[in-house]
Amino acid sequence: MAVYTNLTADDLAGLIAEYDVGELVSAKGIAEGVSNSNWLVETTAGRFILTMYEHRVDESDLPFFLSLLDHLSARGSPVPRTIHDRAGAPYRTIRGKAVALIEFLPGVSIDTPRPAQARAVGEALAGIHLAAADFPGERENSMGLAAWRDLLADCGERLGEIDSALPGLVARELDFLDAGWPRDLPRSVIHADLFPDNVLMLGNRVSGLIDFYFACTDMLAYDLSICLNAWCFEPDGAFNVTKARALLASYRAERALSPAELAALPLLARGNALRFLLTRLYDWLNHPPGAFVRPKDPLEYWRKLRFHQHVAGVAAYGIDP
Amino acid sequence: MAVYTNLTADDLAGLIAEYDVGELVSAKGIAEGVSNSNWLVETTAGRFILTMYEHRVDESDLPFFLSLLDHLSARGSPVPRTIHDRAGAPYRTIRGKAVALIEFLPGVSIDTPRPAQARAVGEALAGIHLAAADFPGERENSMGLAAWRDLLADCGERLGEIDSALPGLVARELDFLDAGWPRDLPRSVIHADLFPDNVLMLGNRVSGLIDFYFACTDMLAYDLSICLNAWCFEPDGAFNVTKARALLASYRAERALSPAELAALPLLARGNALRFLLTRLYDWLNHPPGAFVRPKDPLEYWRKLRFHQHVAGVAAYGIDP
Repeated sequence: MAVYTNLTADDLAGLIAEYDVGELVSAKGIAEGVSNSNWLVETTAGRFILTMYEHRVDESDLPFFLSLLDHLSARGSPVPRTIHDRAGAPYRTIRGKAVALIEFLPGVSIDTPRPAQARAVGEALAGIHLAAADFPGERENSMGLAAWRDLLADCGERLGEIDSALPGLVARELDFLDAGWPRDLPRSVIHADLFPDNVLMLGNRVSGLIDFYFACTDMLAYDLSICLNAWCFEPDGAFNVTKARALLASYRAERALSPAELAALPLLARGNALRFLLTRLYDWLNHPPGAFVRPKDPLEYWRKLRFHQHVAGVAAYGIDP
Repeated sequence: MAVYTNLTADDLAGLIAEYDVGELVSAKGIAEGVSNSNWLVETTAGRFILTMYEHRVDESDLPFFLSLLDHLSARGSPVPRTIHDRAGAPYRTIRGKAVALIEFLPGVSIDTPRPAQARAVGEALAGIHLAAADFPGERENSMGLAAWRDLLADCGERLGEIDSALPGLVARELDFLDAGWPRDLPRSVIHADLFPDNVLMLGNRVSGLIDFYFACTDMLAYDLSICLNAWCFEPDGAFNVTKARALLASYRAERALSPAELAALPLLARGNALRFLLTRLYDWLNHPPGAFVRPKDPLEYWRKLRFHQHVAGVAAYGIDP
């Protein structure tokens, strides 16, 4: 739900004139992305997404994010390419903020995925992992293991407001993850936030993977574990093993998972559940009262974490080790 | 800034299937309209605006609003026509709320209009007044003179919080308007809310008049006076007589204004200024603290009202009586 900055018709026409994309026909602020402002722009040459990077995206990261889009798109992944301006720049500055013009992709986001859609996402995720293998850029995971203690500290004593047992349980989980976190699994560029919001689909086909603004260098199996949590639980909290099997098997058909990666999946799933628990808790505790955007339920991820605490191996996810 | 209700991909696909408009390709919630939810929908046959009517629009008014769009569009006005469903219905119900599929029109809304744009709006306003002459529908102006005392009462004593002199001044203005309000000027269907937000332009040309959800039967000159206030003041509050002349002269070139209409313009301008002052005051006093949508400055319309209090005749607006 996001248009944080007003751009006038003159701003928009002036900006579009810096690109070789014809003339401005229409521009609608769209309710998409939680930390950027976005417009669906139509010109005489086609449709585009104009993204303005607000406070959550560091401008120094933009060359990484935008060149990654171009790299993946050039290799045939369903990822929007960046439109470069007439001088070749992948982004510009307007009203003190960075903006990028990005290819429009068709498709709609799914609320409650079907197994066939989980399957398509597993395949698409493996596809970008393979396509990113020769991408030269690197970016540390600013939301990785090393950040979680700080996130916990940022939530502070107010964590107990939600559930008085939570501070102790989270601290113990963090110690456990710290001790066992894998160090030698295959690493490359990962999306790190491939929730249904960030996947466009036409029927059961993935037509777009979007919002790469958490992309970073980290374990490929960690990315897969994020999808496992984001795509394979029902609205009532139940784990859907049919969807998990579909997601993992289709990933594996494209990119083989080593025994070490398979063995690590439950731990990685606990790890990303803690990451989203902590960031959602932070948003929950820090959102302005009465704000229009309701923060997501943090405890959804606590329940997912607890599910994986009881998983002994990937057989629980419906696949063979 | 408005998508108040979530529609899932399945909701959207199911809805689109009820219309002869091809298959769903994309749907983006758009930040447009303050009291409805809107999506920019693309299908294999074209682009459309899907509007869901939230609490501010009474479903019993929809046949009037939607048939008015069809009437004006059929007469060549730049107004979006309603797409009827396969059974011929102009609107449907989903999740308990009425929705209509409406033609997409190109253009962008102007923040600070140029004189040539004010001229184009005057001509377009006269155009819909002429095109609506044989429209059979009628609807009382629920935001007209008769409603203003109730609006004032709804603001109550808190009016003085904004400026302690305001309650007395507004009450006196209301008495003055009540006593002198014209009763015999030409009446027909008016837009009643033709602010720059509700006009789409391509350069200096009007490409769309939208958001007819205050349309009603009232004095045509009252509609013109609304545009005078909405289009002819600068952001710093100064009245721009060049824009006023452009707006009024271009209107008059299409539809003659009688001496009585011309003489009434300053009073009508005071009247609509009071109407927008009161509704903005109400929103200002009643918006939830910390809400994402910042209410518009009500005192902007108090300053406009005061300007017209000192106007003796239309010469002050740059035209001959």
